[in-house]
Amino acid sequence: MPEFGKVVIFGTGLIGGSFALALKAVGAAEEIIGFGRTPSTLRAAQQLGVIDRAGINPTHEIEDADIILVATPVAQMPAIFTRIAPYLGAHTIVSDGGSTKGDVVAAARAAFGDRIGQFVPAHPIAGAENSGPAAARADLYHGKKVVVTPLPENSDEALDHIKRAWSICGADIYELAPEAHDRVFAAVSHLPHLLSFALVHDLAVRDDAELFFTFAASGFRDFTRIAASHPEMWRDICLANRAALLGELDSYRQQLDVLRLALAQNDGERLEEVFGVARQARRQWAGD
Amino acid sequence: MPEFGKVVIFGTGLIGGSFALALKAVGAAEEIIGFGRTPSTLRAAQQLGVIDRAGINPTHEIEDADIILVATPVAQMPAIFTRIAPYLGAHTIVSDGGSTKGDVVAAARAAFGDRIGQFVPAHPIAGAENSGPAAARADLYHGKKVVVTPLPENSDEALDHIKRAWSICGADIYELAPEAHDRVFAAVSHLPHLLSFALVHDLAVRDDAELFFTFAASGFRDFTRIAASHPEMWRDICLANRAALLGELDSYRQQLDVLRLALAQNDGERLEEVFGVARQARRQWAGD
Repeated sequence: MPEFGKVVIFGTGLIGGSFALALKAVGAAEEIIGFGRTPSTLRAAQQLGVIDRAGINPTHEIEDADIILVATPVAQMPAIFTRIAPYLGAHTIVSDGGSTKGDVVAAARAAFGDRIGQFVPAHPIAGAENSGPAAARADLYHGKKVVVTPLPENSDEALDHIKRAWSICGADIYELAPEAHDRVFAAVSHLPHLLSFALVHDLAVRDDAELFFTFAASGFRDFTRIAASHPEMWRDICLANRAALLGELDSYRQQLDVLRLALAQNDGERLEEVFGVARQARRQWAGD
Repeated sequence: MPEFGKVVIFGTGLIGGSFALALKAVGAAEEIIGFGRTPSTLRAAQQLGVIDRAGINPTHEIEDADIILVATPVAQMPAIFTRIAPYLGAHTIVSDGGSTKGDVVAAARAAFGDRIGQFVPAHPIAGAENSGPAAARADLYHGKKVVVTPLPENSDEALDHIKRAWSICGADIYELAPEAHDRVFAAVSHLPHLLSFALVHDLAVRDDAELFFTFAASGFRDFTRIAASHPEMWRDICLANRAALLGELDSYRQQLDVLRLALAQNDGERLEEVFGVARQARRQWAGD
């Protein structure tokens, strides 16, 4: 008998579709129902075997669901939470795949009210170049990190339910408080994107931009690779994680103030110290 | 008959050694003499066939040299210029391989005085992971850019002499004024290094640094690759190009001020515009 009964997935693209395929690959779900905004995407998901069937009306599929995974862009989640909240069964656990947590938790609290304990927030760290159901893969989460950010209201059973599902997908499970999650990802992901976009923009708007790009080489290529990321998606992530990102940006601006002063004062010792600490940490992190 | 007579190279590592090997590969130099601070490096350069012989006393080798290439770290150049200046022959052309130009030109002016016309500054854009004579390769400069930064005092003949040598090495020759060179490389190379060092340092000095590095992923990896660069070398480059780098850093800090304001004001439109311009420019540059 499968470990999970009915699994309902909102958003059958890379994240939700790979979750579905991973559970199906080991027969861990009785039935997987997909919902999405675009009929053609849902049809593709069904034809590719990502889902067993496309749902028609969420209100008919929620009550007896065992797991509901909301794997849409974060901006669509509040409306989905509000739509499903009145129909949640007593044993249904809802989770999400959003890359920010504070805003998702706030939306979930507003929608689920005193049933918020049934919502277990999570963030699977598995971006990829492609999107949509055709990009979904049963092994996408093998050896990848999934950060679960428990709420005080979550029962141990609810938490274990979601952790167990992600473990079956092959993921390594980590736990962080939602606030810690948002601070960490602001620092190691959202801020670098902002900084990289800023550098390219600063050059691109100059009258003589061409001159600069002519001599840009491999260091520039690495540093600006993430400036080719999707503008709308990163606008949404930055706004969703605004508070933590502002904090990290201000911390970084203070670093730049220190380096500017060292440079202005010809303080080579200070520059070398900062560069040396950074190099040592970067090499240790990368295992060089 | 070889196109060039005696070629003297100070610093027989990657940059100077590859220049020597490239000229030798096509028989373009009668004789190549190497100088360096470390006897073992010079012996290695001779054993590897990078140079024909190691020089003993520069004062005996300078007068009849056709080309003198100073390919040491920039910090060593002023002393070398001063050492060789009194012995320059009437037809000797001196060039360099430094990655900053304003400071090198200033040192050359101080050393060569009214013979500054015999100094043609240049910057071959060909870094590599390795250094030393063993890393030198005859084809290092094939298809690479060499930026010559002519001085008003340079004759057409002096300029052509150096450009011709680099062309023989297989390089594509560009011309920039020294100030433009320093501004361009401050923006596309020196500033990104500073920014990348600053991000890693900002995380590394935190009490909970480990937490951040645990969740750093591929975007962080690309953005911080140049933070593993050599601290002393980048200290010297930053100080050597201090004025231009301060200008670029201040321009960048203004960009960050704009993005901070947009974020604080929830101005998604502004964020998306900046990100969109950057993405478009990055993709166009990379040929995506």
